[in-house]
Amino acid sequence: MSRGIVALAGGVGAARFLSGLCEVVDPAEITIIGNTGDDMEWNGLSISPDLDTVAYTLAGVADEERGWGIRGDTYESLGWMARYGMETWFKLGDRDLATHCFRTDALRRGMRLSEVTRRICEGLGVRARLLPVTDDRLRTRVETSDGILEFQKYFAEKRCEPEVRGILFDGVETARPAPGVLDAILDAVAVIVCPSNPLISIGPILAVAGVGEALRVTTAKVLAISPIVGGRALKGPADRMMRGLGLESSAAAVAELYRDFADVFVLDKVDKAERSRVEALGMQALVTLTVMKNRAARVALGRAVAGALELDPRPEPTP
Amino acid sequence: MSRGIVALAGGVGAARFLSGLCEVVDPAEITIIGNTGDDMEWNGLSISPDLDTVAYTLAGVADEERGWGIRGDTYESLGWMARYGMETWFKLGDRDLATHCFRTDALRRGMRLSEVTRRICEGLGVRARLLPVTDDRLRTRVETSDGILEFQKYFAEKRCEPEVRGILFDGVETARPAPGVLDAILDAVAVIVCPSNPLISIGPILAVAGVGEALRVTTAKVLAISPIVGGRALKGPADRMMRGLGLESSAAAVAELYRDFADVFVLDKVDKAERSRVEALGMQALVTLTVMKNRAARVALGRAVAGALELDPRPEPTP
Repeated sequence: MSRGIVALAGGVGAARFLSGLCEVVDPAEITIIGNTGDDMEWNGLSISPDLDTVAYTLAGVADEERGWGIRGDTYESLGWMARYGMETWFKLGDRDLATHCFRTDALRRGMRLSEVTRRICEGLGVRARLLPVTDDRLRTRVETSDGILEFQKYFAEKRCEPEVRGILFDGVETARPAPGVLDAILDAVAVIVCPSNPLISIGPILAVAGVGEALRVTTAKVLAISPIVGGRALKGPADRMMRGLGLESSAAAVAELYRDFADVFVLDKVDKAERSRVEALGMQALVTLTVMKNRAARVALGRAVAGALELDPRPEPTP
Repeated sequence: MSRGIVALAGGVGAARFLSGLCEVVDPAEITIIGNTGDDMEWNGLSISPDLDTVAYTLAGVADEERGWGIRGDTYESLGWMARYGMETWFKLGDRDLATHCFRTDALRRGMRLSEVTRRICEGLGVRARLLPVTDDRLRTRVETSDGILEFQKYFAEKRCEPEVRGILFDGVETARPAPGVLDAILDAVAVIVCPSNPLISIGPILAVAGVGEALRVTTAKVLAISPIVGGRALKGPADRMMRGLGLESSAAAVAELYRDFADVFVLDKVDKAERSRVEALGMQALVTLTVMKNRAARVALGRAVAGALELDPRPEPTP
């Protein structure tokens, strides 16, 4: 395998960026290392929300308006589950349920999550390689004013309302990187930290043994994209979580979290005043439009990132 | 609890009969002992086809035209499962899937099938009590010209085409009757063997330790209804299976299978010539219309059976 591109990815923000990047560089060159800290058991089903969001988005089937699940999905099963007193706070569609049934059954039969994910991507026609950061159990827990909550309870059920006091990665002491994760980082020509929540999307990835070290020692150029624009998270609770932990909710504060390994930091034009703070961390600052309103904006951001990393352009399809 | 009515039930034929009976006698008086020999694991889901057919039918939500599942159900999940190479020969609808997700999760968490079934019935608003004959594993296997097949493989996937040479009940040596099964039979005022396949629907029920004995010693009047009319099964492969095992495919041959415990045998008017053969087995023969074309026919059969068993009529709803 040639030296590829690695992307560390959370959910929606990462997926949108990656869908743009895949139009600019060859998807077959990209290895995405996905967050599994939000994984959960729900009604007995094994659910990997971030892996699915990336896979569905790259397959072109994601419900992007809603931010999870499959476009045009129906909710017959969920409605019926309510009759049996099952949990219905997580709004799973019928097609989405098929993915979770597949994953649950395969994991129970002993298949590793990385292999399950490979098969899901194959079934969906995703060309990029998507690896969970670990095949082992890793669960983000949020310490809040309401006690320690599982991430999805905090995020989907409590709608991020409780004040955040800390973040724990349950299982991180024993979680090993999935096969291919460290090699991909070490062999990469470029590593991209997608515009995802640095605390709960990128944080669990960095917390897995060897991943942080691999990022520090790789010869790849490492570029990170701020998920905070104008002091606010584009999606999700990153801004409130950062403030809850006593951090500033700003692009520069995200850059600081990545100072150990990032060579280039991408911040939005509205944050251009923070350029000098980023550069003071020893990083190159790339100021561009980062809000991915539409397909054109995603592709433009992908192009800017590919340019900064001097990536080969995607070969034109043979006519 | 007052002395109730017990019904031994397979799938569709039993469910139709019971829906008529429930209009004639108080459903709260009826304990249905259901077949679990057709239960299976499919894509990791625990499925109990006969219990579900009975529950759905009594809840008024069954897809009676098709013979399984829920009326008006959709197939979004199944269609998506095909992408992942999952088994799709069993045509599960989205609502139906919710039932199987509930059962699978509850069983995995250690709940007994009888309790799972109680909760499903409660969720569906079924007033009769539905008990699986056993909470233990019991699996009907069909010895055929194509080898030994799991029942659902033989029935749904191979469409009953292979010639039947024998029937096995895997697990029957260790399967214990579910709580309440033997007591219900022993305490009953009447036991009804529904018009179900005697070999693979009623057979597994009778094979569970203690059930056959309870039927022989109960003081209840035991009535069985022929599922064979004019030499043919009304539904399913009973006729071909009986011939495959060297039996005659006739109402009288079914009566013979039940001779140890049945007091009354109900056969269709088209089979009235077999009345004397039934009576020669020491049973009372009740000749009536047994083909349940529509609701009126079901209620009429229920009424005929209730009359023969001298059952209390259902109290009229308070106006």
